[in-house]
Parts: sequence; structure tokens; C-alpha cells
Amino acid sequence: MADKITSRSTDYAQWYNDLILRGGLADYSAVRGCMVIKPYGFALWENMRDNMDRMFKETGHVNAYFPLFVPRTFLEKEEGHAEGFAKECAVVTHYRLKTNPDKKGELMVDPDSKLEEELIIRPTSETVIWNAYRDWIQSYRDLPLLINQWANVVRWEMRTRLFLRTTEFLWQEGHTAHATAEEAVEETRKMLDVYADFVEHYMALPVMKGVKTANERFAGAVDTYCIEALMQDGKALQAGTSHFLGQNFSKAFDVKFLNKENQLEHVWATSWGTSTRLIGALVMAHSDDQGLVLPPRIAPIQVVIVPIYRGDEQKAVIDAKVAEISDALKAAGIRVKYDDTDNARPGWKFAEWELKGVPVRLAIGPKDLEKHQVEIARRDTGVKESASLDGLTAHITGLLDDIQQNLYQRAKAYRDIHITPVDSWEAFRQVLEEKGGFVSAHWDGSPETEEKIKEETKATIRCIPLDNPQEPGTCIYSGKPSKERVLFALAY
Amino acid sequence: MADKITSRSTDYAQWYNDLILRGGLADYSAVRGCMVIKPYGFALWENMRDNMDRMFKETGHVNAYFPLFVPRTFLEKEEGHAEGFAKECAVVTHYRLKTNPDKKGELMVDPDSKLEEELIIRPTSETVIWNAYRDWIQSYRDLPLLINQWANVVRWEMRTRLFLRTTEFLWQEGHTAHATAEEAVEETRKMLDVYADFVEHYMALPVMKGVKTANERFAGAVDTYCIEALMQDGKALQAGTSHFLGQNFSKAFDVKFLNKENQLEHVWATSWGTSTRLIGALVMAHSDDQGLVLPPRIAPIQVVIVPIYRGDEQKAVIDAKVAEISDALKAAGIRVKYDDTDNARPGWKFAEWELKGVPVRLAIGPKDLEKHQVEIARRDTGVKESASLDGLTAHITGLLDDIQQNLYQRAKAYRDIHITPVDSWEAFRQVLEEKGGFVSAHWDGSPETEEKIKEETKATIRCIPLDNPQEPGTCIYSGKPSKERVLFALAY
Repeated sequence: MADKITSRSTDYAQWYNDLILRGGLADYSAVRGCMVIKPYGFALWENMRDNMDRMFKETGHVNAYFPLFVPRTFLEKEEGHAEGFAKECAVVTHYRLKTNPDKKGELMVDPDSKLEEELIIRPTSETVIWNAYRDWIQSYRDLPLLINQWANVVRWEMRTRLFLRTTEFLWQEGHTAHATAEEAVEETRKMLDVYADFVEHYMALPVMKGVKTANERFAGAVDTYCIEALMQDGKALQAGTSHFLGQNFSKAFDVKFLNKENQLEHVWATSWGTSTRLIGALVMAHSDDQGLVLPPRIAPIQVVIVPIYRGDEQKAVIDAKVAEISDALKAAGIRVKYDDTDNARPGWKFAEWELKGVPVRLAIGPKDLEKHQVEIARRDTGVKESASLDGLTAHITGLLDDIQQNLYQRAKAYRDIHITPVDSWEAFRQVLEEKGGFVSAHWDGSPETEEKIKEETKATIRCIPLDNPQEPGTCIYSGKPSKERVLFALAY
Repeated sequence: MADKITSRSTDYAQWYNDLILRGGLADYSAVRGCMVIKPYGFALWENMRDNMDRMFKETGHVNAYFPLFVPRTFLEKEEGHAEGFAKECAVVTHYRLKTNPDKKGELMVDPDSKLEEELIIRPTSETVIWNAYRDWIQSYRDLPLLINQWANVVRWEMRTRLFLRTTEFLWQEGHTAHATAEEAVEETRKMLDVYADFVEHYMALPVMKGVKTANERFAGAVDTYCIEALMQDGKALQAGTSHFLGQNFSKAFDVKFLNKENQLEHVWATSWGTSTRLIGALVMAHSDDQGLVLPPRIAPIQVVIVPIYRGDEQKAVIDAKVAEISDALKAAGIRVKYDDTDNARPGWKFAEWELKGVPVRLAIGPKDLEKHQVEIARRDTGVKESASLDGLTAHITGLLDDIQQNLYQRAKAYRDIHITPVDSWEAFRQVLEEKGGFVSAHWDGSPETEEKIKEETKATIRCIPLDNPQEPGTCIYSGKPSKERVLFALAY
């Protein structure tokens, strides 16, 4: 590792970029706002995706795949949806290139290949999917329809940041169809719980569950539920959303079903999504000035083993012992890497694997072998210990579990002290500027006040927490009456 | 099941479409040439993908993800590649829509959002990936780089068919970088073997391995290796390709490495791909006039259980027994479905699951229960038997294996009798017209002759088989000398 990474206190944004780039998670690409997810970053995403996919299937969902292209006229059908997405669409207008007669070796768009109707690269798939559902749903017996899709989507963002906001990103989008509003709301809430469960138990990241205000709602939704996490710089990050769409899309695409009473009704809908943005949240929540800190449950490598030796003879003895250790760990389902490359010293390797956030590092040299032990270093606390080779697998299994819990508790403690109730505009501004985190404050419920607070402070209402205590009060901005506190924060 | 599907002998193409649509694998979409992969079809693809993915990882490959967009100038860099793909590209020219001032409620392309350089939706990713590799590869220590990507790609085909040829399709593309030509060729051949292994052992489909002629080579490759399968109508289908790219892309994108002698060299490349097209091959190879016939190893449902009963009391008893059977099968890793829907009679369900190609069907009624047995029907042969509930799991495990082998042997027997050696132009034409299959014939080795044969018969050289016996002869078309036979066929 040639240079140190930027520290959080020096430049938080640069620290974040250093971690992503130097940690080998992703790289910039030649296309504006698009990134390359490198193998180490993709292995992390695979672990996140596979766990979520299993949880979706356990709750009765199946996967399918819908087209990348959204015809322009589809986007027009749901007005709110169109307004929300029209301004950030990649638009396909032609289907052929030809050689440029004026510039040798160059290609140009063939004007004869202009499409009659432009195609949008999907920014989300409600329109395409509800157009298909019209043919798939006739009777209540076809409901519920519980479908998820893993896909790439494109939103033409003006300011992009690796993982947090990229023009193209990977995500999953669930799209379900139901016979009643109640069932659809229940599904919306169920998937919010699945998301919270995943983010808390796999990503070790505590979240606030809540509902969005009208201003922050998904374009086309009746209600948007969300989980909000807190980053180390005190800014919030929306980690997943689940939308109750009412009958907006079934009406726009004319999807009706015959109910048990043999009457035609419009279908009720939900959609819910999480994306590679979660990787950005993971990085910002747990990492430190030495590099990434990955939760064991989703870390691509859970244990790295570094040999300490002089000469081939010592190495051969260590290799044999490491093979035993490694086999035993793998048999217990632990993801292990033996870093026996010969072009770097142990100290360099230690720093490299710390940068990459591997939860547990084992070092083993001749003296360890003599004492029938290894040196164990845990990434979260930096604590080192020597441990006997007897019972090592059980010890490491327990240690990984302990690290997972510790990361969650640490993030939760930080989050909990960063929910600050305030009762005045001065205190509100002061907490935002000096402490950060969630500010729990009374709001008069009007979009206008919400908008003005955003203009003056950049803070947005992250959510109205679920099961929020009903507590009458006075809006911190307008002084008008309020019936409950909501959570404000600066946010990614 | 309302209507019978079209029989193979009546209309092969319609039979194929009926199977895809009625079997629930896919559906047409509103976008020209694009399809929706429905949950049952996607579950099949997941089983194919997951097995291939495991095989790629076992051979040392890792996954990554590269951008959807290819800048126009990237495509220009490798001349052959540009020629091959420029004419079938979806081109993004703008990044925003706006409300149409002339037509209320309509959107239009915002002319102010024109891109300086057009973006192509990737038809394949060599250019984007080799542009990234330039930054990733400095020394021989960075090689080999063994990366695969699962992605969607777009090729603007004029004539499309479900799974076989769609504008957008899902695929994997491996892109590897090596220090020597030998290593790259070895990788090309290794991945061809992995493909053949997967298609033969999971899809139960025998393949011919070979190398393509220059005419049929991938645009930008030095050599294209392929596996070719035979469909029931006697037409061949290319089931996977593996390309040795030489230094074409490393030169186009200036990717060099310092070798062990400290000299700068261009990197050697391979790429290899398989796609959702394989599902088309699977359907056409094994299915019959009753519907799909899916090989057990990749079938989404391996065993379906249908209860035969009158009244709730009988059903309750059967339910309890089925729960036992089902649990035991699942514990053995078998994918089971219990079809106890109450809106269809058993005969209708039998036909429906035959249509969907489930390998094994169990039927269980009160009389079976009395005799402590079930009725078992296998999809491949239609044979029914009664089997004792004792040892049922072991029996079914064996049966699934037997069906897998039988499908392969049946397809292989068909394929083997459809490789016909011919030594005259008349015989060549006659075999193509009357018998179909692969025609093994002498060819003078010239692209001109190959092209003329294609013009006159539509037959193409599918491949020059690997380890082809060197046997001097006379070209069936030109009469010129030939050193070996090659395989011709009509093809998808």
C-alpha cells in the first residue's frame, strides 16, 4: 500500500472515495456518471443480493425479467410518475450506426434508423410491468402476484458519486398486485420489515422505519415507506423504500380483475426497491481511517491468513499447517483466503487487508507453530490475541459473530445519541450545523413549511417514524400546531 | 388447459411458440423484439445461471459489472468489431424528456439534452472492458485476469423469435487477459469445455465442439470456438462461443504489461459467452407434442404432487401424507410442488404439468393410501408405475437421475444418426432438404465457396470439429482439393 488514505476528519468525501477506489470495490468508467463494480465490490454485492433474494423467496416472491426499454408513451400514462422521471432519462432515438462518409474510420448515427417512438432506458419498471400485468391478471385467483426483478436502471443524474448516486445502478424492484388495498398495504409494510431485517442483521446497520411526507414520496405512489440509516458524518441515507401505489398504475394501464362477487375491479399495487447504493451506506457507516470495515455476514473474505517466514523450508511447513486450518474453516462455511504472494512483506499485507476490511486476520510464523498457536487480529477493534490451534474453528466462528454484533451495537450507539429532540428553530439549526444526525422536531404538516426548511437549511424530513407517539406541539418553523414530531436530517 | 398446443409435425415454429407462451416461460412485450421472461422461465434460467456461475468460479473466475453504455468512439477502435456491431445498435442520443408544448399530456425529447457523443447500449462489452483493463494491468503479476459478467445486452435484430433471437437478451460474457498467446488459447479451450460440460450434463444436450471458419468468426476475434447442438427439426443451434482475441483489443485500447524480463508487451485476450438463447435450445431439443420436457437437474420443479380426492375429509388425510412425502423429498434436495388448488380436476392438472415439463408427477388418492403407495408418471417416456411409500425418496432420486440420462441418450441418438457424410453436391443438397442435421462434407477452405454454398442452400459451416481427422478429399462444391471434412447445417 503506497500511500495512506485520506482521514475522515481531513476530508470525509475524499476518505469515502479513497476507500471505494483503493479498497478495490469500484472504479470510474469512461462514461460520465457510470462506474465499474470491480470483483471485490461485486463479491460483496453478490452476498448482499443472495441474502435478500433468499429472504424475498421465503416471503413468497418469485423473480422475473422485464425489458430494459420503456416506450415514451408508457411513461406518459401516470402523470406523477412521468413528472418524476422525464427529466433524467437516457433516450434511445435510433437503432443503427453507419460509417461516416466525411471522417474515415468514424461511425455516425444513421438518420434512416430513427425510431417512430423513442425508447427510454428504464429508470424503474412500473409502467412496463403493469402493461404486462394487464394480460396476466383476469380473476382474483391470479392474485396476489408477487414478482421481483434484479436489474440495471438508468437515471441521468447531474452530480454523481460512486455507489451513492450513479447514472446506471443495479437494484431489485419488487412489483406486486393485490385484490384489496389492505393486502397491498400489508405487503408494503412486510417488505419494509424484510429490508430492515436485512440491513440490520447482515449489514449491521440500524435503521429508522417510517413513512415519507408527500414531498418526498415516490413519483406515482400513494404512500412511500422507507428505512433511514445514519452515516458517520451525521448525514442520513435512505437505504430502501417500499411503496403503496394504490390503483394508480392499474388505472393508468387498465388492469382489472373479477372479484369473488364476479365484479370487475382495478388491482391494488406495491413496489419496493434497494440498490447498490447500499454499498455506499455500508462503507460510510462502519469504515475507519485504516480502510473498509466489512460485517462478517456479507464480507467476501471473512478470514485472511498471512504467513510469516524466511525461506522456502519455513514456508513449506507453514503452508501445510495453513492448509489444515483453512480446510477446517471452509468446512465450517467460513470464507478464507491464504495470502502467500511472495512480492510483499507481512506488514504491507496487513495494511492491505485492513484497507479491504477483512473481519479477521490470522498471522502464523515458526514461533507460532512451535507454540501450536496463531495470532488473531480483529478488524473492528484492532485487538490482537494469540489463540491455540485446538478449537480454532469454533473460536473464529464465535469471533465473527462477535464482530457482527459489535459493529451493529457501535453503529446503533452512534445513531441513538444522534437523534436529538429540539423545540425551537434556533436549536434546530444549531443541532444540524454542529452535531448532525436526526433532529426530532414538530412540523405543522404543510409541504410549504417543509420546503422552506429545506431551502434554509438543506435538511429534509427523512420520515415520520412508524408507531410515532402522538404528541401535540408547535411547529419549530411556523409556530403552527403539530400533532407529532418528525425526523429531519441532512441526507445523501 | 383450454386448447391443445400445435403439434411439431403441423407447424414446428408455432409448436415452439406455443410451448414458450403456454408453458409460462416468456411473453411478448410492448417493445418490438423484446420479451418478458416470466417467473417459470426465469426460475429455469436461475438454475442454469447458478450452475454455470459455480463452474466459472471453480475454474478461477470472478464476477464484476461494467457499464451498459459504450461510447461511440470506443466501438470505432477495433475495426472488425465495429463492422460487426454498428448496424444493429440501440443508440442513446439525449438524456432528457420535456413536456410537449403542442400536445397536452405528451412528452418529447428535449433537444437541449443532446449528448456530445452518442452512447450505444452494449451489444457485447469487449471495448468497455478493455478500456478499464488498461488501468488495471501493469505487470505480469496482474495476469491472468479472469473476469465474468452477467448482464443484459441489446442487438437490434430485424427478425426476432422468443429466446432464440431477441433485441435484448440476458447473457454472461467472460473477458480474460493473459501474458502469453498459449495461455489465452488454453483459456479459450477450457471455457469451451466448461460450456460443453454444462450443456451436456445439465441441459442433457449433446454438442459438437469445433472452430468457426473466418466467415462465421466473432467480429474482432482471431479464432472462434463453438459448441453446436441439434434441434428436433434437424437444424443446428450455436449454444456457446469462446473467442481467442489475440492482441486485437489490447492494441486497440493500448493495454500493455511489463513481463518478467521487464519488457512492455501487449496483453492477450479471450472472451466467451452463453445466453438465454440456451433456453430456446433446451425447449426445441427435448419437448414433445404434450409440451415442455425439462431435464431434472435444471427443472424449476422436479416433482409435482397431485391429490385425488372427494370432499374435505379425504383431502385432509392426503394432505397429511403429502406433507410427509414432500418433507422427505425436500430434505433430499428435491424441488417439489404440491398442486392442491381446488379449481381444476386432476386430469386438467396432469395436462398442465405435462405442458410445463415437470419430470416426475406423483398422484395420490384414497386407494393409494390404503395400499401405502403412490402413482408415479415420468414425463420423458409417459410411463406410469405404482411405487411403495417405503423408500420413495431414494426411488425418486434414482428416477430423476434416470430421466436426466435418458434425455441425454435420446438426444444423442438422434444427433448421431443426423451426422451424414456426403461426397457429392447432389447428396449434399438432398440430405439438407430431406433428412436435415449435420452434413459432413469436404470443403476447399475458401470463404467464396462457403458463401456460395450458403447462397444456394442456406446451409452454413457450423464448425470444423476439434481433433478432426485429416482426410484428403474433394470439395463437394468446387471440386478443389480439401484436407478435411467440415460440418454444414441449416441453423437457427
